[in-house]
Amino acid sequence: MKKVINDPATVVTDSLRGLAAAHSDLLRVEYDPDVVLRADTVVRGRVALISGGGSGHEPLHSGFVGHGMLDAAVPGAMFTSPTPDAVQAAIKATTVDAGALLIVKNYTGDVLNFETAAELASADGLDVRTVVIDDDVAVADSTFTAGRRGVGGTVLLEKIAGAAAERGDRLDDVEAVARKVIGQVRSIGVAFTAPTVPHIGEPSFELGPDEVEFGIGIHGEPGRERIKAEPADALVERMVSAVVEDLPFSRGDDVLLFTNSMGGTPLVEVYLAHGIAERLLADRGINVTRHLVGPYVTSLEMQGISLTVLRLDSELADLWDSPVNTPALRWGM
Amino acid sequence: MKKVINDPATVVTDSLRGLAAAHSDLLRVEYDPDVVLRADTVVRGRVALISGGGSGHEPLHSGFVGHGMLDAAVPGAMFTSPTPDAVQAAIKATTVDAGALLIVKNYTGDVLNFETAAELASADGLDVRTVVIDDDVAVADSTFTAGRRGVGGTVLLEKIAGAAAERGDRLDDVEAVARKVIGQVRSIGVAFTAPTVPHIGEPSFELGPDEVEFGIGIHGEPGRERIKAEPADALVERMVSAVVEDLPFSRGDDVLLFTNSMGGTPLVEVYLAHGIAERLLADRGINVTRHLVGPYVTSLEMQGISLTVLRLDSELADLWDSPVNTPALRWGM
Repeated sequence: MKKVINDPATVVTDSLRGLAAAHSDLLRVEYDPDVVLRADTVVRGRVALISGGGSGHEPLHSGFVGHGMLDAAVPGAMFTSPTPDAVQAAIKATTVDAGALLIVKNYTGDVLNFETAAELASADGLDVRTVVIDDDVAVADSTFTAGRRGVGGTVLLEKIAGAAAERGDRLDDVEAVARKVIGQVRSIGVAFTAPTVPHIGEPSFELGPDEVEFGIGIHGEPGRERIKAEPADALVERMVSAVVEDLPFSRGDDVLLFTNSMGGTPLVEVYLAHGIAERLLADRGINVTRHLVGPYVTSLEMQGISLTVLRLDSELADLWDSPVNTPALRWGM
Repeated sequence: MKKVINDPATVVTDSLRGLAAAHSDLLRVEYDPDVVLRADTVVRGRVALISGGGSGHEPLHSGFVGHGMLDAAVPGAMFTSPTPDAVQAAIKATTVDAGALLIVKNYTGDVLNFETAAELASADGLDVRTVVIDDDVAVADSTFTAGRRGVGGTVLLEKIAGAAAERGDRLDDVEAVARKVIGQVRSIGVAFTAPTVPHIGEPSFELGPDEVEFGIGIHGEPGRERIKAEPADALVERMVSAVVEDLPFSRGDDVLLFTNSMGGTPLVEVYLAHGIAERLLADRGINVTRHLVGPYVTSLEMQGISLTVLRLDSELADLWDSPVNTPALRWGM
């Protein structure tokens, strides 16, 4: 294993020091427990938006802390849920009268630990609620999950709910728009190679030289099936079909199309897939009116891509378009 | 070889279709020859800034087309210089009375083809000049280069010269600020794995399980030496020393520190390296006042990182800070 690390036990904290140095205008980091917080002060009357999960998926979640998106991100150890006390620290640092919404990807450990922290905060008199995102259409249950996994849709959810919180929506309304996004977003991923978790030191699964894991999870969990490598047109058609048929998306829908690198796949291939996916959606009468392309929900150095499609109405489109200023997403300001 | 492509012969053009679809607000693409152009119209009295080079280094250069940075990017085939006629097409599409500056990375083919295009444009009565960036301190000459290679500093050069062109500086002044950047910027890279060029189909070199190529080029060209894998503190110290001693940077300097992923190295490691590099510079009395972290000059899926340090004065810092709106760099608007 060759990696730019000193010690697998401290890799997350060591990386946060670099994040804090690079983006002191946007965020600050508190350590032990590790929490990433917006640099600007907590505002009375504004809902706090908090997310987190195992590390190794960067820029998710800490790269999305800032104006118009997350108030706090709670990074767990590599591929490991953050502890309830770390989530509690994030709540305490950000949450005042207007309450907080916790965005949780559907993994058993994350759901348990975030809900525990929310209950403890509620016992202290704070209005803290959770929403669980489960946008991955690949499999019904999986290694770390009862029910579907939360994957690429998380970025869109954090952006849109963050915009609602930023403009001063009440907690009921931020929660409602979050639940709307969760209801309208679907994803699927594929992998060509496996990630190597530092404290394990070897790839988390084996794939043959012509094998592709179709429906991969973001921790390298198995998907629907192993298929033979195929040209991009065929692979992306398979992915678009899986996503479109699930919701289902329909002729006339306006959508946001998010084509994501799982980490190790170069941008030239991600844009190539994006162009194909947009054409395949257009062939079905589905209009891509918003775009996101790049490595936003990764699985360390895993090679592969994912597609996420979100059905838009004018409210969701406006919230997507509104200004955001974070390390990884930035526009309009 | 598993990649998201249809045909190695069309991968660059196929990818540009996705780029154009995703960023129609910022840029448009003309095909055959392939040129990426700013979406807004050419402005009389404003210098055109043009760059380009072999593909496979994305987001360099096409991801930097837009307000405050490049007017045009000319993507060659994978790891192959663009042809003079493609560069000519970019000049014709963007250059009016104020002339154009071509930013060329120091590779023999790029220098030849950009200078040929510049001479042809000059013969047509346009004032077109070239600057050559050669910021890589690793080796004096290399596989594709007489003299030092142009690497990570190119991003900083395109941003700063682009800001000067955007505010209406005359060609003499844009060229002067570009030459100032070239004089003040130094880089070095390391690789853990090799990239696979689609039309070749196998990794471009072999590294043992504990070997690191120190001083790697962005096409996987050999560097200074092969070293044993070592902890991040030692590796980054080796990189910082090579860069600092070269210019040399001195106690009291204000600098921009750019920590780059070569493509396949996850962001968690890149931020970790950035934090170490900032501390090692501070130990030498060098103040990092501006930061850039991420995969901006890549070599397909190659795992590795590079460090680039630019000495700043108030002019360069102001131009760096000024608004930019491109697919890959965006702030202030």
